[in-house]
Amino acid sequence: NKLLMYHDAWSGWLCVLLVGLSAGVIAAVIDIGTNWISHLKHGICLNAFWLNREQCCWASRQLQYDNVNSEECPEWFTWPQVFGTYKKGAGEFLLSYIMYIFWSTIFATFAVLLVKVFAPYACGSGIPEIKTILGGFIIRGYLGKWTLLIKSIGMMCATSAGLILGKEGPFVHIACCCGNIFSYLFPKYGRNEAKKREILSAAAAAGVSVAFGAPIGGVLFSLEEVSYYFPYKTLWRSFFCAMVGALVVRSINPYGNGHDIQFSIDYSVPWASFELLPFILLGILGGLWGAFFIKTNIWWCRFRKNSRLGQYTIFEVVCLALITAIIIYPNPYTRMSMSELIKRLVSQCRVEDMIDLCDYPNAQFYNGKSKGSIGLAGPGVHHAIWKLFFALIVQVVLVTFTIGVKVPSGLIIPSMSIGAITGRIIGIITEQLAIQNPTFILFRHDCSKEENCVTPALYAIVGACAFLGGVSKMTVSLVVIMFELTGGLNYIVPLMAAAMTAKWIGDGFVRGGIYDAHIELNGYPFLDNKEEFNFTTIAADVMRPRPEQSSSLAYLTQNGMTFLEVENLLKETTHTLYPVVVTREQPYLVGQIQRRDLQIALKSQKMQRFRLSQSLIQFTSSSETTINSDYEVDNQNEQRLTTNPEVIRIGNLLDQAPIIVTDQTPMETVVDLFRKLGLRQAFVTRNGRLRGIITKKDILRHVQQLTSSNTETTYYDN
Amino acid sequence: NKLLMYHDAWSGWLCVLLVGLSAGVIAAVIDIGTNWISHLKHGICLNAFWLNREQCCWASRQLQYDNVNSEECPEWFTWPQVFGTYKKGAGEFLLSYIMYIFWSTIFATFAVLLVKVFAPYACGSGIPEIKTILGGFIIRGYLGKWTLLIKSIGMMCATSAGLILGKEGPFVHIACCCGNIFSYLFPKYGRNEAKKREILSAAAAAGVSVAFGAPIGGVLFSLEEVSYYFPYKTLWRSFFCAMVGALVVRSINPYGNGHDIQFSIDYSVPWASFELLPFILLGILGGLWGAFFIKTNIWWCRFRKNSRLGQYTIFEVVCLALITAIIIYPNPYTRMSMSELIKRLVSQCRVEDMIDLCDYPNAQFYNGKSKGSIGLAGPGVHHAIWKLFFALIVQVVLVTFTIGVKVPSGLIIPSMSIGAITGRIIGIITEQLAIQNPTFILFRHDCSKEENCVTPALYAIVGACAFLGGVSKMTVSLVVIMFELTGGLNYIVPLMAAAMTAKWIGDGFVRGGIYDAHIELNGYPFLDNKEEFNFTTIAADVMRPRPEQSSSLAYLTQNGMTFLEVENLLKETTHTLYPVVVTREQPYLVGQIQRRDLQIALKSQKMQRFRLSQSLIQFTSSSETTINSDYEVDNQNEQRLTTNPEVIRIGNLLDQAPIIVTDQTPMETVVDLFRKLGLRQAFVTRNGRLRGIITKKDILRHVQQLTSSNTETTYYDN
Repeated sequence: NKLLMYHDAWSGWLCVLLVGLSAGVIAAVIDIGTNWISHLKHGICLNAFWLNREQCCWASRQLQYDNVNSEECPEWFTWPQVFGTYKKGAGEFLLSYIMYIFWSTIFATFAVLLVKVFAPYACGSGIPEIKTILGGFIIRGYLGKWTLLIKSIGMMCATSAGLILGKEGPFVHIACCCGNIFSYLFPKYGRNEAKKREILSAAAAAGVSVAFGAPIGGVLFSLEEVSYYFPYKTLWRSFFCAMVGALVVRSINPYGNGHDIQFSIDYSVPWASFELLPFILLGILGGLWGAFFIKTNIWWCRFRKNSRLGQYTIFEVVCLALITAIIIYPNPYTRMSMSELIKRLVSQCRVEDMIDLCDYPNAQFYNGKSKGSIGLAGPGVHHAIWKLFFALIVQVVLVTFTIGVKVPSGLIIPSMSIGAITGRIIGIITEQLAIQNPTFILFRHDCSKEENCVTPALYAIVGACAFLGGVSKMTVSLVVIMFELTGGLNYIVPLMAAAMTAKWIGDGFVRGGIYDAHIELNGYPFLDNKEEFNFTTIAADVMRPRPEQSSSLAYLTQNGMTFLEVENLLKETTHTLYPVVVTREQPYLVGQIQRRDLQIALKSQKMQRFRLSQSLIQFTSSSETTINSDYEVDNQNEQRLTTNPEVIRIGNLLDQAPIIVTDQTPMETVVDLFRKLGLRQAFVTRNGRLRGIITKKDILRHVQQLTSSNTETTYYDN
Repeated sequence: NKLLMYHDAWSGWLCVLLVGLSAGVIAAVIDIGTNWISHLKHGICLNAFWLNREQCCWASRQLQYDNVNSEECPEWFTWPQVFGTYKKGAGEFLLSYIMYIFWSTIFATFAVLLVKVFAPYACGSGIPEIKTILGGFIIRGYLGKWTLLIKSIGMMCATSAGLILGKEGPFVHIACCCGNIFSYLFPKYGRNEAKKREILSAAAAAGVSVAFGAPIGGVLFSLEEVSYYFPYKTLWRSFFCAMVGALVVRSINPYGNGHDIQFSIDYSVPWASFELLPFILLGILGGLWGAFFIKTNIWWCRFRKNSRLGQYTIFEVVCLALITAIIIYPNPYTRMSMSELIKRLVSQCRVEDMIDLCDYPNAQFYNGKSKGSIGLAGPGVHHAIWKLFFALIVQVVLVTFTIGVKVPSGLIIPSMSIGAITGRIIGIITEQLAIQNPTFILFRHDCSKEENCVTPALYAIVGACAFLGGVSKMTVSLVVIMFELTGGLNYIVPLMAAAMTAKWIGDGFVRGGIYDAHIELNGYPFLDNKEEFNFTTIAADVMRPRPEQSSSLAYLTQNGMTFLEVENLLKETTHTLYPVVVTREQPYLVGQIQRRDLQIALKSQKMQRFRLSQSLIQFTSSSETTINSDYEVDNQNEQRLTTNPEVIRIGNLLDQAPIIVTDQTPMETVVDLFRKLGLRQAFVTRNGRLRGIITKKDILRHVQQLTSSNTETTYYDN
């Protein structure tokens, strides 16, 4: 017995271990693959085509850096060089440009074809669907092995195609696929949907963990954003799962930098109090961006769904890839991948940095390494700001049309990228203001002519946090992810101020994040457990049948229905569940029976006997009758029927533990009950008499009605 | 309306802001006070008595360090010096010893008198009680301002007295007192116990945050350990509250080191894979220690409760302080405060360290600062190990008797201290083994004769984590607290391995942590929401009255009871709640009524009318009767009664939304319902008829019966 218990406990740990391992391996493979495919757009390592540019230039002695710090070496052949054009110039540029567009379109086409042909569920980020699944809804095949495979490959291609989308969100979906697949190895989890959801919660944590190297952030993400019900056990297992995933990625080391921390930062100047002002400004911008993005993206997705565009999904993706490639190639800041761009933006300028973003002619080098006191910006910085500004516009426009197309696509990295650009621009502006007006009241305390007090790179991180916060409406998990991502334990306060402002501003325009918006767009039956139910309605207002309607509730009686009556009821109605009451005159609720069970029972009876139609169906077992006879008043009736040979007893199919609420119960309590117990329906009684039924859909409809009517009152009546 | 909503939302934020601020200020004051009082045991700053030793020696030019790195300077007078004895020797030692014992006893007596006279609730750590309060139980005055004041002062004295207890656990209680006090400023929270608990959850997070400078760990601690119900909103507010608290402590800077990180670490050598073995060994020891401590401490507390010792609480504390002072003074590692000891143990040996623990004669200095390759230990290390070993024994014995006496006492720091000592000893042993056998299969990969691979200080941290984990059974929050406490983002895996092993080993002996054990010891009505209910009983097995008993359920009928009958029922029974059914013959549940409401109603009727005893009491309002007449069959009866002038209508007091479960409902579902909705009772019906009631206490009794019978089966029958 104890051994079995231990095995039971261990199977859960073993399962999350496997999930963590596989999620880590898959994430590392995808990272490596994406890197290689991305570089293929620019050129090829002719000696060893399976190497990407960095690996190709690894051993080279003639390593150079171009104007955005990308490596160049003779072993790496750009496409013009492959075709024999070595001279820099318009022709070479045009050839590169064309090859870039060509490969981008090829990759995007490949991605959309894979998704379209093999696994339609592989598109999007998958987080709205996983939220819905963890909320108790079952989407068959959504977490299957085909989805896993196609999503992994499709993601590499889609990201490499240069489309404005990220691969971090889909990692959550991929990890959950692993969770689902491995849970079938353990019957305890594979056969029980509620138990499986515990594994999926842990898998979601591992997904974020492998994407960002942020195990604690992953657990909090799972807790805050995706999981519906997060028991204590799950917390610890999720942490273990996330940790294993992060360790695997770290030991495979796909980025080749040996760091667990993706955007590692180490600034020479601490942040000053006055900087909270620009940080809050970034938060406001992030909130506005979030509201704008959610509204336009949902509008475009709805347009796509309802118009004829929805039929040309492949064409849409190919066009989008073509347009994206044409637009983004000329600007070096959009040409590089978004993760590289973010990395560049969150890095402080160092001595060896020759890029235009770090063109500070009068810079004095603090501790011989980083530019601690940088002074006035040179012309390079001005150019860089313009380039970044155009990159910002391009990304803002393109991401709105990209999220929602039929390729695997996350929006975490695009949001962060847009935020980082905005942040860096505002950072540089603040920096220059502080240098030019060191005696201004705000700057006087912390800044001086000699020493700089503003690190524009920090603004990029805060901006990334604010813009992601505005879109996703994440809070604690966002701050923890950002701090694990950057390793900046000292920058929690700026991150928090930005995330908080972004959420508050965003909530003023749109309630809920992009994932909730997509859940609503797709009409998934998801009962949000974050928003409080603040209305004063009672169960009688929501239950069906409505008192004002004439239709009556479909129910069975305990003893008095004939085979024919039951069969007709099943034909006339399509409910999945029927209540069973004592008699028609005394509709006291006895229990509930599944439609499926009832159908099977009727069918098996049909095969065994003839002339069934007048047989009585009785929902009691004979043993029960004797036990309860001294309690039940109605039992005389029952006793009479028991002697009738034409009685079919299917009491064993009756579930005698239905969830009951009285009709006067406040809907607040009912909603709470549905959320916390994960119910699908509850019966409404009054003085023990069955009065109606409330299903999850009834509640969703009710909440929607109340919310919309409430909004209308606020906006139009006042 | 919208403005009101915003005000509503803001009041919560404002409240947690105030809680965070006040908790931070109080924590800083306590830290400063404790430091000063502690140093008073050794001596005094004669020029400025309000300065502690470090502050006194701040500006001194003749700063020296004694053998455990404590500062000495001419401005600071030890007690022998105050009395004119400047010569080092036996006399001077004896005088110091006596003064130490004297002050220790004074401080302890002061602490216990304060608690005894002014605020009996201020004793202990308070965490078990706060868990119970957050679980829905109300202890009046437990979070009052007197408790806050006395606990703060008492804690300074008790810690300074040298008793083996910590002040970190009580910070949670203190922060919760702040939460309770400030919540009365906001009617929304002060008047609603459920809402107040949200503030208390946030306050608990702030408590841990100010104690360890660990805001994220504090939130997770609140989530994992103390909070019963942790909605989404609370998460974000708790984080804010914890952050504010940590910032306040940081800006007041009570330790004078300018760090947010209390036990800041920066080791020169990363951890090697083979070290997981000693880490797991530490986890096993931690688990064993946890089980040992919980069993002996509970045994002693029970003994104290049941024997005559319980009446001599002041005497007990004074004796304990006397014995503690006598034992701990001679050993320099116990003489220093436990936080100092931990800090010493988790620090890597540096060049300037002259203490015996760092006596490595052949040490070569890595990067000119820390001893990266230390070589064989000198005699000082051997001495230090013996001293540490005796310190370990002393602390283990004393802490068992100390936790539970009538002074404010936490056990986080003592557990960490014991763990750190064990860890450091095992670390030094491993280090020396690795140096002497560099070719041994375990060490071959990572170590060599020239370079050392083991950092004993890391073992101290891992040990602290393991031993605290064994006692408290915390998991994720423990790891996060340890990592925030030390800033060691790279040491999550060792910490996790140790915490996990400790929990698993500990759970094999004792289920639940020390806080749960104290809840059980004190008999608080706390329904644990962490353990799964795995039994197959149904509601009918638990409800009262038991079918086998002849006693019947006390209930009221909707229309048919006279004033006298109701009054008698109230006299005969003491329930706080009565069910109301339709009639005696048809006991269909209509609703429930509070005893208090019923009493008030009867009293007010008594004052208004005469000759009441035969008046009928009716639990319907007249408006309801007309609405429902077409639905109810029993209403003819009711209509008749309505015409009777002797009818007292108190239908408005009837709560028509009782929680109902059927008697066949599995107890698993019932327990779930109680936990998640925070219920105190539910009615049990069968076919709508009231059959019994289940209260929280019934469930607690049932769970206890099942668990104990189950354990017996396992231990004695197999």
